Amino acid sequence: MAEITNTTYEEISIGDSATYTRTVTEEDILAFARVSGDINPLHTDPDYAATTQFGERIAHGMLSGAFISACLAMELLGPVTIYLGQTLNFRLPVKIGDTVTVTMEVVEKHERRKRLTIDCTVRNQHDKVVVAGTSEVMAPVEKCTVPLTKV
Amino acid sequence: MAEITNTTYEEISIGDSATYTRTVTEEDILAFARVSGDINPLHTDPDYAATTQFGERIAHGMLSGAFISACLAMELLGPVTIYLGQTLNFRLPVKIGDTVTVTMEVVEKHERRKRLTIDCTVRNQHDKVVVAGTSEVMAPVEKCTVPLTKV
Repeated sequence: MAEITNTTYEEISIGDSATYTRTVTEEDILAFARVSGDINPLHTDPDYAATTQFGERIAHGMLSGAFISACLAMELLGPVTIYLGQTLNFRLPVKIGDTVTVTMEVVEKHERRKRLTIDCTVRNQHDKVVVAGTSEVMAPVEKCTVPLTKV
Repeated sequence: MAEITNTTYEEISIGDSATYTRTVTEEDILAFARVSGDINPLHTDPDYAATTQFGERIAHGMLSGAFISACLAMELLGPVTIYLGQTLNFRLPVKIGDTVTVTMEVVEKHERRKRLTIDCTVRNQHDKVVVAGTSEVMAPVEKCTVPLTKV
């Protein structure tokens, strides 16, 4: 069975980083439309989207936010991380077939409450920044390994 | 056919608000796990989640971010809104069966680039704030009505 092991506050250092890469499919955008309730035709209707400045359907900006959250939870820190806050600046659209890579880097450690400040950048396959932001978390204190189940 | 009509920069005033309510299901959390890639067992494994401080599975914080994005796109402003940025402070967990209501209120209008600053609050059925934040958008300039398709 697959497992995930966390990285604790003690173990992580300023400058440590992690990445998470996804190629965005039509189904990802439709799934995000369903789960969020944002069925705006810019995301769901190819004919309408063709008439807009983007020329085709684009992903919801918050899908990149979801990928940042996944990078944090699955790659950089893992279980028992407490997500305190996130800023997101949406800079460029993400289209169907784009491959986006989230890069997260620890920039501050705060002993009080074991808080970390983490820079987040999401780049597309042309190395253009599509989303930038900052995460605030409480890092895990105790080491743990937990099983992953299929969803 | 269902349609959506936007609200333009000229039409919207400081103090205008909109709400969006969702009851979070197990399937919402699993769908968000799939689309984000965050399959952390706190969200997906009831047995593991029972051993944590939360006592049961909780929704991804960013699911509330997705609801804020939907409130913006479907309720407050509609098509041709450009999402510039979002801040999110995650305050309390959202559990399966919780009914959360996003409330968004325009707090600033900036003539330059037709920008709006919007306060966002997500409350649960006990009127507790689960997420708070601020949205920055470019509001629509031209009035439009567009068809909505089923997703």
